[in-house]
Amino acid sequence: MLDTVRWITADGKIFPATGKIDKNLLPGKLRLIDQTVLPETLVYVETDDGQEIFDCIKRLVVRGAPAIGCAAALGLAAVSQHSKAGNSSDFLCELRKTADYLSSSRPTAVNLSWALKRAVLSVEKSVSCGLECVDKLKESLLSEALEIVREDIEMCKAIGQHGVALIRDGAGILTHCNAGALATADYGTALSPIYAAYEKGLKIKVYSDETRPLLQGSRLTAWELKRAGVDVTTICDNMAAQVMREGKIDLIIVGADRIAANGDTANKIGTYGVAILAKYHKIPFYIAAPYSTVDITMNDGSKIPIEERDGDEIRRGFGRLTAPPDVSTYNPAFDVTTHELITGIITERGIIRKPFTANIRKMFGRK
Amino acid sequence: MLDTVRWITADGKIFPATGKIDKNLLPGKLRLIDQTVLPETLVYVETDDGQEIFDCIKRLVVRGAPAIGCAAALGLAAVSQHSKAGNSSDFLCELRKTADYLSSSRPTAVNLSWALKRAVLSVEKSVSCGLECVDKLKESLLSEALEIVREDIEMCKAIGQHGVALIRDGAGILTHCNAGALATADYGTALSPIYAAYEKGLKIKVYSDETRPLLQGSRLTAWELKRAGVDVTTICDNMAAQVMREGKIDLIIVGADRIAANGDTANKIGTYGVAILAKYHKIPFYIAAPYSTVDITMNDGSKIPIEERDGDEIRRGFGRLTAPPDVSTYNPAFDVTTHELITGIITERGIIRKPFTANIRKMFGRK
Repeated sequence: MLDTVRWITADGKIFPATGKIDKNLLPGKLRLIDQTVLPETLVYVETDDGQEIFDCIKRLVVRGAPAIGCAAALGLAAVSQHSKAGNSSDFLCELRKTADYLSSSRPTAVNLSWALKRAVLSVEKSVSCGLECVDKLKESLLSEALEIVREDIEMCKAIGQHGVALIRDGAGILTHCNAGALATADYGTALSPIYAAYEKGLKIKVYSDETRPLLQGSRLTAWELKRAGVDVTTICDNMAAQVMREGKIDLIIVGADRIAANGDTANKIGTYGVAILAKYHKIPFYIAAPYSTVDITMNDGSKIPIEERDGDEIRRGFGRLTAPPDVSTYNPAFDVTTHELITGIITERGIIRKPFTANIRKMFGRK
Repeated sequence: MLDTVRWITADGKIFPATGKIDKNLLPGKLRLIDQTVLPETLVYVETDDGQEIFDCIKRLVVRGAPAIGCAAALGLAAVSQHSKAGNSSDFLCELRKTADYLSSSRPTAVNLSWALKRAVLSVEKSVSCGLECVDKLKESLLSEALEIVREDIEMCKAIGQHGVALIRDGAGILTHCNAGALATADYGTALSPIYAAYEKGLKIKVYSDETRPLLQGSRLTAWELKRAGVDVTTICDNMAAQVMREGKIDLIIVGADRIAANGDTANKIGTYGVAILAKYHKIPFYIAAPYSTVDITMNDGSKIPIEERDGDEIRRGFGRLTAPPDVSTYNPAFDVTTHELITGIITERGIIRKPFTANIRKMFGRK
């Protein structure tokens, strides 16, 4: 549906497309939607240059943890195809160097280093299994990168299939920030049940919080839903309570950055407030995220560190100065929604319901 | 403290200043802080031109119901001083024409027509009492206009004196939108207890919601509090819940556009949400407004019409496009906070507490 992160061959074929991966994919490039110019224009970046890929991740041309992981893996394959290494050992050495470099573009993004490590490991395995031909290793690296993208799409689709069961025909759905196709390889997490409902032919109406300070809701969520044909209405964050009171919202679905073992969920700033408003209006509040977002080692959300970002995001967020230039600000990037405010957690393995601690442990195969 | 709306004489004296009104005020001009260029620069507009005064009200150079009323009354005096009318009857005729013209600058602003009617009525009374000299009528008109401004300042001060009793040393206070000195002739309504606390030497910390879409909180409230020396921190609207959870807020004070007989209160969009968050965090939530804001004929808030404003305030609020250009929006300008969420209503006559219906009736001298 939305080609946020893809591979493009020299003759213009896009992968993954219909899901099938054939063997003639090299040479090619990483292809990204440039999210920095949305919603004004849809522009693609195509690159096989290491420094440009590093820059794309750093400048948020691509953002959203799963999308960054996919972009890094494909980017690694794009850079490495040009390797002049004469043997597998030299190729591996170059590969590790490139992976380390890309990994440093956003040091705290877990998916970024995870995807790069996985791609490097796959080549290491091939080598240790006796594959010596550098050209074959380049093909094998790209296959693994495309597999990472394909798995992400499958995971998102599965979240959509589980989540769509919660959506009735005619439903009003509120979401916050962007946990959509633009944050993943496709479909998204919070938006995947919405796309699934739309594809099923259900008449739904989505309200998208604009999500200050960086406006991912109005710039990205509204853009991608509208482009897909979904009925979407943009509101300011402070209008959510009024929209709920007017009976326009039947359920709320948001994404997650990290979920503790008891269900406490860190997500974009404002999520906690939306959850309180939902409770007051007796509206079900769902998290949608891959089960890998659950940090089983963290008992509750109280230990999740809250990053504070630069005040100019508030003071000059729209380009123009909208507050005194030297006024104090408080700009937490995330908040933690306590599990008592959450109705359920939609994962690719099914919907986790209360009691979260017990049911999350079950999903992880623990007692 | 803040000279939002004043009279300035030809030799540069400002009224009302220390409260005393002497007799040598003509010729002079209406003097306004130009709120359209805040927070970037502090610029005053000085004018005695009817069309320019009309334009100042229409373009929101001056905004906030009480401030608009004061500006209109002083503006009427500024224009009318140049009347060439040879007798009281011609003067009155011109005066009514000017008042009608100014009144049409923002047709729904109640204080605007109220202040103009009161000023005209005062001249009509003088004439009917036998005052024939046009120069004397001009003086009497200006006195009445200055009296309107002075009463507004006194009303605001009284709200501050009642409200300051709620504020302990070290308190954190959250406010929404701008019900401050910039919305009145001085001190404001919601901000008046804050100024009173500051003047008393209490250490307070104010959090100002930026208040999308028009950002009165970051553009105006943060500006005027900072200018006065009050410790103010600007946050995005969706950060209020997190700030409350962190224990930073001891009480919330906001203004009001209209209060129903049962205490239900219409105010800037987002107020209702803040009140729900306050209830969840067990934080007292106060309205501050002159008792004239109470519409005793309205049983509850359900009948208060909610104005919906243009979607480009959300999509292009600050020049830059921040949402798809043709995306649907919902942009209610106000919401109604139900009385159950309100701890008390701070008026110039004292703090109204629950049960609101009975206590509001008492204030109006009804059983």
